[in-house]
Amino acid sequence: MGKIICTGLGPGDPDLISVKSDRLIRAARHVAYFRKAGRAGQARRIVEGMLAADVTEYAMEYPVTTELPFDGPEYNAALAGFYDDWAARLAELAHSRDVVVLCEGDPFFYGSFMHLQTRLQGRAEVEVVPGITGMTGCWNAIGQPFTWGDDVLTVLMATLPEADLLAHMQRSDAMVVMKTGRNLPKVRRALEQAGRLGDAWLVERGTMPNQRIARLVDVDAADCPYFAIVLVHGHGRRPELGGEE
Amino acid sequence: MGKIICTGLGPGDPDLISVKSDRLIRAARHVAYFRKAGRAGQARRIVEGMLAADVTEYAMEYPVTTELPFDGPEYNAALAGFYDDWAARLAELAHSRDVVVLCEGDPFFYGSFMHLQTRLQGRAEVEVVPGITGMTGCWNAIGQPFTWGDDVLTVLMATLPEADLLAHMQRSDAMVVMKTGRNLPKVRRALEQAGRLGDAWLVERGTMPNQRIARLVDVDAADCPYFAIVLVHGHGRRPELGGEE
Repeated sequence: MGKIICTGLGPGDPDLISVKSDRLIRAARHVAYFRKAGRAGQARRIVEGMLAADVTEYAMEYPVTTELPFDGPEYNAALAGFYDDWAARLAELAHSRDVVVLCEGDPFFYGSFMHLQTRLQGRAEVEVVPGITGMTGCWNAIGQPFTWGDDVLTVLMATLPEADLLAHMQRSDAMVVMKTGRNLPKVRRALEQAGRLGDAWLVERGTMPNQRIARLVDVDAADCPYFAIVLVHGHGRRPELGGEE
Repeated sequence: MGKIICTGLGPGDPDLISVKSDRLIRAARHVAYFRKAGRAGQARRIVEGMLAADVTEYAMEYPVTTELPFDGPEYNAALAGFYDDWAARLAELAHSRDVVVLCEGDPFFYGSFMHLQTRLQGRAEVEVVPGITGMTGCWNAIGQPFTWGDDVLTVLMATLPEADLLAHMQRSDAMVVMKTGRNLPKVRRALEQAGRLGDAWLVERGTMPNQRIARLVDVDAADCPYFAIVLVHGHGRRPELGGEE
């Protein structure tokens, strides 16, 4: 009997993969990864040069990505069938071999793998190895402490209604906004209303050679990919200089 | 000229250190780390067996931890002097050698290193290598997806006033509460009022051999160390089954 091992790849720099995931990926005979049809795929790109010469690869290609509205029934049905099929295929493979599934960031933090994990319950042994989240890579790329003292950090999806974004932004010290892309104008309006637009950064591909770091006020709203992350640093609420061990 | 390299150690399992930090730590001739006086120190414990035989160690011992109130002027003055002294010493060392500073979790995420980093500005070259945050290790230890869909995640310090904790908890899907310890009864009351106590977990030493995972309702309030983390999982707000690449 084999098992499904999902390895978190971290934010993009292969040098930031954990020692454990690095070892598992290099030793893998079977690897699977998500990608958009017709693309190389970011997860696969991160491990370029690390895979064994005789590895078998399974590219799990999303049937739809931006062609249908995210919350529409057709989109959900297409994705559900896709995850059902791959869960069945991975469960079958795990009868006789280990399969390493490559996931960007940390698999349990807004990752697609969880849709397979829930479907694999009782059908295959599943192990998950954590990774550095994409947001951690992005705040590291800016090079300033992100949260300290009693700062409240809120992680928001830009797909939320503007009023919800604003309500959270007004109460938060540090913020991360993901799934930006076409939602960027809404995020900017909410940040401006909350009085935090001037503190905001936009980071694309943090920790990668082609990373882009810009003040959000300087970014053209039409020039923001879906995976770019907005970051606002905390200022150390009720400054406290240290902590217990 | 040398530099100060702060390596994030991740949540505790040495196998979860990044490939880059692992390499830097094993090659280091000079390492520094924070610890409570009279204790081995968690950062030092994580790298046990990894350091070179002839390494020089600098234990940066907090002058106070729990003896004085966190927000009192004496506490702040003692800590500020401590960080001033070590920043001066590290800046001096960096004139002629590299010093690797070991930091649990990710250095920019509620880490003590930032108090040195701000003081080292213009006095020494500083490089920071990200790590897996302690909270990521803790949600991985529980073994269930932590956030998905449009979940709002809020990271709170248990030292905040109860009304603030409650206001955030009522608006959040997933939650992380750090700096628990003696603040645990307050956290439990706020979670109960927010209707989320039944969903909450307490994790100590996530990813380490002696990790402890318990339902928060089953935990004795007197039995909660300061570094234990409370976690509440998101349920996938406005379920969305996938994402763009």
